[in-house]
Amino acid sequence: MRNFISVDDVQDLETLVKSALALKKNPYNYKHLGKDKTLGLIFLNPSLRTRLSTQKAAINLGMNVIVMNMDKEGWALETQDGVVMNHNTVEHIREAAAVMGQYCDIIGVRSFPKLVDKEEDYSEDFFNKFIKYANVPIISLESATLHPLQSFADIITIEETKTKPRPKVVLTWAPHIKALPQAVANSFAEWMNKADVEFVITHPKGYELAQKFSGKAPIVYNQDEALKNADYIYVKNWSSYEDYGKVVSMDSNWMLTNEKLKLTNNAKVMHCLPVRRGIELADEILDGENSLVIHEAANRVWSAQAILKEILEKNF
Amino acid sequence: MRNFISVDDVQDLETLVKSALALKKNPYNYKHLGKDKTLGLIFLNPSLRTRLSTQKAAINLGMNVIVMNMDKEGWALETQDGVVMNHNTVEHIREAAAVMGQYCDIIGVRSFPKLVDKEEDYSEDFFNKFIKYANVPIISLESATLHPLQSFADIITIEETKTKPRPKVVLTWAPHIKALPQAVANSFAEWMNKADVEFVITHPKGYELAQKFSGKAPIVYNQDEALKNADYIYVKNWSSYEDYGKVVSMDSNWMLTNEKLKLTNNAKVMHCLPVRRGIELADEILDGENSLVIHEAANRVWSAQAILKEILEKNF
Amino acid sequence: MRNFISVDDVQDLETLVKSALALKKNPYNYKHLGKDKTLGLIFLNPSLRTRLSTQKAAINLGMNVIVMNMDKEGWALETQDGVVMNHNTVEHIREAAAVMGQYCDIIGVRSFPKLVDKEEDYSEDFFNKFIKYANVPIISLESATLHPLQSFADIITIEETKTKPRPKVVLTWAPHIKALPQAVANSFAEWMNKADVEFVITHPKGYELAQKFSGKAPIVYNQDEALKNADYIYVKNWSSYEDYGKVVSMDSNWMLTNEKLKLTNNAKVMHCLPVRRGIELADEILDGENSLVIHEAANRVWSAQAILKEILEKNF
Repeated sequence: MRNFISVDDVQDLETLVKSALALKKNPYNYKHLGKDKTLGLIFLNPSLRTRLSTQKAAINLGMNVIVMNMDKEGWALETQDGVVMNHNTVEHIREAAAVMGQYCDIIGVRSFPKLVDKEEDYSEDFFNKFIKYANVPIISLESATLHPLQSFADIITIEETKTKPRPKVVLTWAPHIKALPQAVANSFAEWMNKADVEFVITHPKGYELAQKFSGKAPIVYNQDEALKNADYIYVKNWSSYEDYGKVVSMDSNWMLTNEKLKLTNNAKVMHCLPVRRGIELADEILDGENSLVIHEAANRVWSAQAILKEILEKNF
Repeated sequence: MRNFISVDDVQDLETLVKSALALKKNPYNYKHLGKDKTLGLIFLNPSLRTRLSTQKAAINLGMNVIVMNMDKEGWALETQDGVVMNHNTVEHIREAAAVMGQYCDIIGVRSFPKLVDKEEDYSEDFFNKFIKYANVPIISLESATLHPLQSFADIITIEETKTKPRPKVVLTWAPHIKALPQAVANSFAEWMNKADVEFVITHPKGYELAQKFSGKAPIVYNQDEALKNADYIYVKNWSSYEDYGKVVSMDSNWMLTNEKLKLTNNAKVMHCLPVRRGIELADEILDGENSLVIHEAANRVWSAQAILKEILEKNF
Repeated sequence: MRNFISVDDVQDLETLVKSALALKKNPYNYKHLGKDKTLGLIFLNPSLRTRLSTQKAAINLGMNVIVMNMDKEGWALETQDGVVMNHNTVEHIREAAAVMGQYCDIIGVRSFPKLVDKEEDYSEDFFNKFIKYANVPIISLESATLHPLQSFADIITIEETKTKPRPKVVLTWAPHIKALPQAVANSFAEWMNKADVEFVITHPKGYELAQKFSGKAPIVYNQDEALKNADYIYVKNWSSYEDYGKVVSMDSNWMLTNEKLKLTNNAKVMHCLPVRRGIELADEILDGENSLVIHEAANRVWSAQAILKEILEKNF
């Protein structure tokens, strides 16, 4: 593994999950790997779990960590080529990425989509350029279309808690008051499509994910039907892919409640966080015994550490 | 000691002061204690001394430190229970604290009061919930009503400089152009009430502190009278507790000057900083030989280190 | 060396360049020097290269690093003496610097000029006061008038790449849409004036640098003439020193292009970054083989590390 941007960067998913679980048992066994290696974490957007868990993972491996809030502490970045930079952007990604690559052995980057131009966001232009110019391994801390460290933590969580060989996993859309990226949903879908699970997606019409990510997963527009016999429910809001970046429904009936849980096989409930209580998920679920949300967040350390370990081993 | 929120968390004040002074002499004697332990520092408000001194203290103990400016780098937090989160807050403290508790062994938190609702601020709802949900030891980096690391540093400073067994210590209100929290004054009062000093409080009428913190300390409304024979003067502005959060006087006669120092027993002058020169304290005092303000600030390292050491020893 | 503010703080430039190149070969040879030493990096302005490279340099020397964005994470600083602080500034530099000096063994500070009052900026009042009150060694991370870590990295870069004993180095002004400080140009000039190079400055009339920094370097107002036989071209915008802080020309003919490169001895092109493409420098130059801009940025680690090493050796 050179970069970690999507599930396609993973050679063997099963082995990677095992590596993460082994690190969870013995976090400090590979401290020599990161000696005199520096991880740069570059944020163009807010972050809590990713910021803390990735630092922790790197420290566990003996790495040095330098954190930079590009938007607040650095310079506004230009990504378009051939442009005359006579407006707000102060530095081109060609220089910024190349320079950071001189100081860091591995770089993690978070850059959300603008949700204005579908083609631009889905081209992952920012990440592709960052990879091209930085010239060191790049880890996505969430890109315009994917959030692989989250999905990897999710699959670890399912592996740890499943009580049958091939559980039924339902990704359900949830209401929200703002237009959010599709990244977490896209990413969860592409990881589930590679996992040994029965995977179903449910959402109101108009919220279809890009087929590139949803793949062959059945889409069920009736949430109650989709939830039947579910072992895991992954709750997440996203804005429309088709009517790009728009909120085409805020139907509060889609909020998961204990009543809806009765339809399932006593399903475990997952969410990447942050979650809006009373909008996306009922308090009773988050405070109840079926919630795995804190468990998932805790596993972010081990997903990040497994990826960093793999990159350190294969590239240095 | 599990958490450090107020002087009530201290089992034996004298022993704790001795521990801090021992660490000041030999800062690196306990580096093994913090090995593979992570301190998270969460700021919801600005900080200079607390930010730097607590990091330094943790490093001296061999800990890893992760700093997070929650207000700028993370998500706006909801603290009310049962609320439908359809406004500005993005994440509930139930999730945020629980998640941080997964990544950190000890968490320091700074959260100022809003100075709008006395009951809310004085309930210390934010800290109580953070402690409840984080599930790891919590250190206050200043809460709505108290600033214990500051008061502990203040008492260390008095211990180091006193020239008689039971010095007279006067807490005096000072003018300011803004409405400030009562936290530093409350905290100093509750620590002095447990220390072996003659403690007196002076302020204009209307600035009475909550009796819970001022305790049995005599309140003298005439500053000149209060200052007589003082060995230490602790200068601080605070807004009204009774007329909650209001500035009920800006009387510049209350600013400490060299002229007023003449009333005292050549008193040492203390202030937690930042201080507004020419408003709270005269330049001549801050630049003079009686000022202990830098000495106090320096002792913030040892107060933080003694608390971290105690928590590491008792909880891990 | 106690402080590093200008080239005048360097005792022997040749030796210092050799020290930096030796560190570049063996970055971790002096890790014992920084043991239990803390570097504080205080930013009053944005920073990418300086922020990352100085952290990296300190880590390579085994130091602890504490970073603080004074403007965002701390308090607004007052620098004027004798002022009544009843406006926006919350803390005086006398206290702030003194306090930071208690927590850090060495402090790096970045503070840009306001470009309003020439006398104030060129007095370097902020840095002089910081040095006076902090009472520990101070490293400039760019002051109102100079950027010595950048110039030192530039001279290292020239030393590494020169193909003749005494190359011709041309500092050329470049257009920009904003009024920028003169610091990088001043600094480059004062370092080149001490180096074994043929140094020429070219800019439109009205952009003369302070003679204190430009020294005896010939000023050529015709860029084409200045570029003749140049081995190195240092491109940089700055605002007027005479008509202080003003943009007196935006003549786009001054932008360096491949056409202009033909006038030179196949000159290498340098720039401190960030650079506005299509305004200061043509894309074709930045993406071409003559550009040294990333090489320079990479050398920021070794300039910072050589300075930190020198200060650690001489002061502790």
